Amino acid sequence: MATQISTLGEFGLIKHLTKDFQAQQASTQKAIGDDAAVLNFGNKRTLVTTDLLLEGIHFNLEYVPLKHLGYKAAVVNFSDIYAMNGKPTQITVSLGISQRFSVEDMEQLYAGIKLACERYGVDLVGGDTCASMTGLTISITCLGEAYDSDIVYRNGAQVNDLICVTGNLGTAYMGLQLLERERIVMNTDENATPAFEGREYLLERQLKPEARKDIIEQLHKAGIKPTAMMDISDGLSSELKHICSQSGVGCAIYEDKLPIDYQAAALAEEMNLNIVTCALNGGEDYELLFTCKLDDYEKLVPIEDVYLIGHITKVEHGLNIVGRNGEELPLQAQGWNAFDAQ
Amino acid sequence: MATQISTLGEFGLIKHLTKDFQAQQASTQKAIGDDAAVLNFGNKRTLVTTDLLLEGIHFNLEYVPLKHLGYKAAVVNFSDIYAMNGKPTQITVSLGISQRFSVEDMEQLYAGIKLACERYGVDLVGGDTCASMTGLTISITCLGEAYDSDIVYRNGAQVNDLICVTGNLGTAYMGLQLLERERIVMNTDENATPAFEGREYLLERQLKPEARKDIIEQLHKAGIKPTAMMDISDGLSSELKHICSQSGVGCAIYEDKLPIDYQAAALAEEMNLNIVTCALNGGEDYELLFTCKLDDYEKLVPIEDVYLIGHITKVEHGLNIVGRNGEELPLQAQGWNAFDAQ
Repeated sequence: MATQISTLGEFGLIKHLTKDFQAQQASTQKAIGDDAAVLNFGNKRTLVTTDLLLEGIHFNLEYVPLKHLGYKAAVVNFSDIYAMNGKPTQITVSLGISQRFSVEDMEQLYAGIKLACERYGVDLVGGDTCASMTGLTISITCLGEAYDSDIVYRNGAQVNDLICVTGNLGTAYMGLQLLERERIVMNTDENATPAFEGREYLLERQLKPEARKDIIEQLHKAGIKPTAMMDISDGLSSELKHICSQSGVGCAIYEDKLPIDYQAAALAEEMNLNIVTCALNGGEDYELLFTCKLDDYEKLVPIEDVYLIGHITKVEHGLNIVGRNGEELPLQAQGWNAFDAQ
Repeated sequence: MATQISTLGEFGLIKHLTKDFQAQQASTQKAIGDDAAVLNFGNKRTLVTTDLLLEGIHFNLEYVPLKHLGYKAAVVNFSDIYAMNGKPTQITVSLGISQRFSVEDMEQLYAGIKLACERYGVDLVGGDTCASMTGLTISITCLGEAYDSDIVYRNGAQVNDLICVTGNLGTAYMGLQLLERERIVMNTDENATPAFEGREYLLERQLKPEARKDIIEQLHKAGIKPTAMMDISDGLSSELKHICSQSGVGCAIYEDKLPIDYQAAALAEEMNLNIVTCALNGGEDYELLFTCKLDDYEKLVPIEDVYLIGHITKVEHGLNIVGRNGEELPLQAQGWNAFDAQ
């Protein structure tokens, strides 16, 4: 079943797609249906972040289900708000939709957005929907709130602070490699079935990442306020470079401390990739990278899924990684540059 | 001169384009450079609106200069905040940029955004920039502020309220017709020059619209709080339909009261178009449509560029336009439906 979007029109489509979204935030005074949403943040600070996702650049619908895409598009924005030590509260969703897509396709996308909103307690409060010449464009802006004294910026890291990451690194990247490999196999041999068995976790990390709300809550409960924090969207090296340059410090991280998933490492070996390089530069993990005071070490230990990977140094030491053999090498921040990828 | 965007990369490009933007709003606590911007709205309400502009759908770079496009993309968002009786305070700008565009092109676009920000006192506080497969994508989200008691929604119009519009209607649409006509002439005859003389105002209304900050300020000064308000982006008929359906009322407007620009009317005649239809359904005027209490009439008269075009009726009367001959006809709300245009 495929209903042409033109049968509903812009206003009809948006009404249809958003009718089941219920407000969950006390700060949502007026959501969709006027020129602007109205939010009441009282005496807290408002946080705002935005992400643009383009078909063919950020996602490939050959292997990304639309529901997962909607979920991920929302969650990556929530992740930016958590990375400020805030709480995501509202999103706006703008879509550019080509003729290839039907109302049912957009329902799938919104089902994913709705699931993410429900899981994270975030309200959909507006957006803009229009036709596009080619492909699908998704632009999401997320608002969040935090008390001023709780907000963590990128520029607060100080010499001797601990460097921590959550979860594991490079797994989302290996999930993408797996999807790409199997896509090529499937396209060349129509009888092939994708070899995903036992590797579901890698796919999940790529297709349906989670934001680390749990970690933010636990840090808060433990009384730890990071000195600097970011989420890992472009890759650990790239994010460390941001924190160090904005804080005016250097860093030393340890190769053998990097949290790496077993399945990711096994696939990397099979595909002749260096898993440490993937962990440093892979991106899309949406884990948290943060620095905190040495004094917080004791409080940090009981928190599950947080890994100490190094420490902040003086700026003149630069950014370094200490290998398994003890050798110190400068950290290369490749990051993910969409403009080189063209 | 054309510098490839890949020479700067995503972070370099954004840093380069935004380095001359100065904060103008007291509520801007932290702008670009972290995972999210931090805003301090104190005890006011936060307003949020967003717009997505796609090349080939919303703009044609054959006749729209990038600087004008940047200006317009920002201003149309400000217009949505004014339409809530609020004050725009911050924007985020996300761009999807194909290989066709250079750093200098993006400088032009940002020069327009900067001019709009300066004129309207709005701060740029974030965004996302990435490569696109084809064309230029611009997604802008605008935040604004207002005291709760000042906010005007679409659903407050009551029977016997006056219906007012600002400026003139259909002019932006006629500007677009002119640009399209001359584009076709230029494409078929390389020696032709566009016949724009004496019609600069039509072009300006299409290419470089302004938001009615002045009207909002004057209404405030006069002590008038509209009962319902919208900006006219899709066309008067479409917006009236929104206000009437959300307020549960009908309306009667008068053909001979519609403010129409002389140049627009002359061109419509030349092009064999009905200027009233253009005024009702043209769209992109970014004027304000509002309703207010009959008692406010005296206070309204001295405000320049506000025109009384009709009044609110009971819902059972429907939406009607009274012609020059006194005949009442149902108002057709064509609006502008991008999904039909494909």
